[in-house]
Amino acid sequence: MRIVFSIGDINGIGPEIILKSLLALPAGEDTFVAAGSYKALEFYRDRLGLPVELRRIGGVDDIATISPEPGVLHVLSVAEPESIKPGALSASAGEIAMRSLEAAASLCRSGLCDALVTAPLHKEAIALAGYRNTGHTDFLADFFGVTSQIMLFVDPVSGLKVALATIHEPLSKVPELVRAMDMDGFFTSLAASMRRDFRLDAPKIAVLGLNPHASDGGVMGNEEATVIRPAIERLAATMQIDGPFPADGFFGAKRYRDYDLVVAMYHDQGLLPFKVLAFDTGINVTLGLPIVRTSPDHGTGFDKAGKGTASERSFLEAAKLAATIARNRTQTT
Amino acid sequence: MRIVFSIGDINGIGPEIILKSLLALPAGEDTFVAAGSYKALEFYRDRLGLPVELRRIGGVDDIATISPEPGVLHVLSVAEPESIKPGALSASAGEIAMRSLEAAASLCRSGLCDALVTAPLHKEAIALAGYRNTGHTDFLADFFGVTSQIMLFVDPVSGLKVALATIHEPLSKVPELVRAMDMDGFFTSLAASMRRDFRLDAPKIAVLGLNPHASDGGVMGNEEATVIRPAIERLAATMQIDGPFPADGFFGAKRYRDYDLVVAMYHDQGLLPFKVLAFDTGINVTLGLPIVRTSPDHGTGFDKAGKGTASERSFLEAAKLAATIARNRTQTT
Repeated sequence: MRIVFSIGDINGIGPEIILKSLLALPAGEDTFVAAGSYKALEFYRDRLGLPVELRRIGGVDDIATISPEPGVLHVLSVAEPESIKPGALSASAGEIAMRSLEAAASLCRSGLCDALVTAPLHKEAIALAGYRNTGHTDFLADFFGVTSQIMLFVDPVSGLKVALATIHEPLSKVPELVRAMDMDGFFTSLAASMRRDFRLDAPKIAVLGLNPHASDGGVMGNEEATVIRPAIERLAATMQIDGPFPADGFFGAKRYRDYDLVVAMYHDQGLLPFKVLAFDTGINVTLGLPIVRTSPDHGTGFDKAGKGTASERSFLEAAKLAATIARNRTQTT
Repeated sequence: MRIVFSIGDINGIGPEIILKSLLALPAGEDTFVAAGSYKALEFYRDRLGLPVELRRIGGVDDIATISPEPGVLHVLSVAEPESIKPGALSASAGEIAMRSLEAAASLCRSGLCDALVTAPLHKEAIALAGYRNTGHTDFLADFFGVTSQIMLFVDPVSGLKVALATIHEPLSKVPELVRAMDMDGFFTSLAASMRRDFRLDAPKIAVLGLNPHASDGGVMGNEEATVIRPAIERLAATMQIDGPFPADGFFGAKRYRDYDLVVAMYHDQGLLPFKVLAFDTGINVTLGLPIVRTSPDHGTGFDKAGKGTASERSFLEAAKLAATIARNRTQTT
């Protein structure tokens, strides 16, 4: 598989964790491309003494001819900075981050690369550079013309997988969004991803309730009775799906161990237990795009930039999982 | 201190965990009274071979003369069942549970006992017995004429303490309840409890945001900007209080270790991380009552009743903490 990295904010830890991950990735049949700034990668490589061979890609079509070689990162230069200032918020870094993302997404869309792993960008830097869409999610939605993406969080150590029914929404909007959502389409997409991306032939899905105690039979809220439980009952004919479970008791009793996937109704309900259980290894997978995309579960780390102390753990796992999913999709379609 | 146990549902694990706790409680200056059914305690003691000496209390006033004696449980019989059926839902067990609770609360109100520890009751059994208020919280609110209680969850192993701003509410009501709440009064009560009940002279309180990422500067919701942050800023003059923090990152980065108390805005936000971190040792403390009350963090366990397999861990810790808080209140007032 050919995996492309978008470089993220070059004043953050993105280039460092890309370089460190490259040294830790298993030698094998995969090749790794970074789209972004050659100069930034060179800067951090030399500054931090990371023995990665950076090899410039002459033209996009050369990517098709790359063979796997340990310790080599192929770099497609799409924009170069005047200067690199670790930890600094800058419009030029924002500009490079977005051009890197666009180039990397294009390589996947054209089939020259098989999966995208995005290093963190800084929303304020993107805004400074004059972009309206300041995040990965918005950019990728526009770029691929998709209206709904599903965020899936994966802990490669424990295997815990948590998907969110709603993502970055005010808590006050969550109940109405849950009531209005296409539950059947959502769970069917998730089950399809489990089969196709994770090769789980008969995935077991657990669904959390929206309300405390999953409403305790309607005492606190009714979304369990009106939308969640009916969807589970309809879907149970075609997939292994259980719930709605009281979220706290479900995680407290470690029932997630009995399931391949846990579906939370909102951001904190899924990410609170996930982040407590997954420590620094959590990674994100974006479902609903026509391409494979993963990303580390952290930000630009401006406070650590250029110091060599950033952990590549999450990015490394994101790169490994991107390759695995790309391979699984190839083999099952 | 004199600690009184309400017996809970006699067909559940309540009597068993009371008896087992009694054998595990340190011999010292505390005495332990169970209000409820002598017969039920005797039944489980004999069935499970638990070497507890049950000593009948002749009249309420005799309680004042009890001296500490290891292995002795003083029993105030307030209602006796026709039969005891482990695991069965029954109106008579519901009736006894409520009469036990009322008697135990009365002993605390009159000053004959210093703290109340409630064994679990079964809401359906209470409803079968014809009561309108089917839970501890409602009963205690009526009994003591209080309008607001605060649920505090304590893990005696790690010291983690989590309080809830809203408790058993539909998620759709949480934002408006948070907007309407008396934040100053709420946090002032909590800080007072930390000082009085836990002897923390300068308690450090962390407050979680309501919205994902604590609204990320207003991008998702505004309760952080309109009510939570202003309250924290006002209160920071008189107490150590920080936030609002993004809940998932706060727990993921283990920042709770830097604080004496974490305040969650709603049930699952507090109890998801608490139950993952506290395993089976979590206990509840009810603040806002004129008496000390603690309880174990589990239910009646009908499936385990009468088998001798129920863990007394949470009840035992609840009893120890009740004695500690009662002692602390005596010493600081």
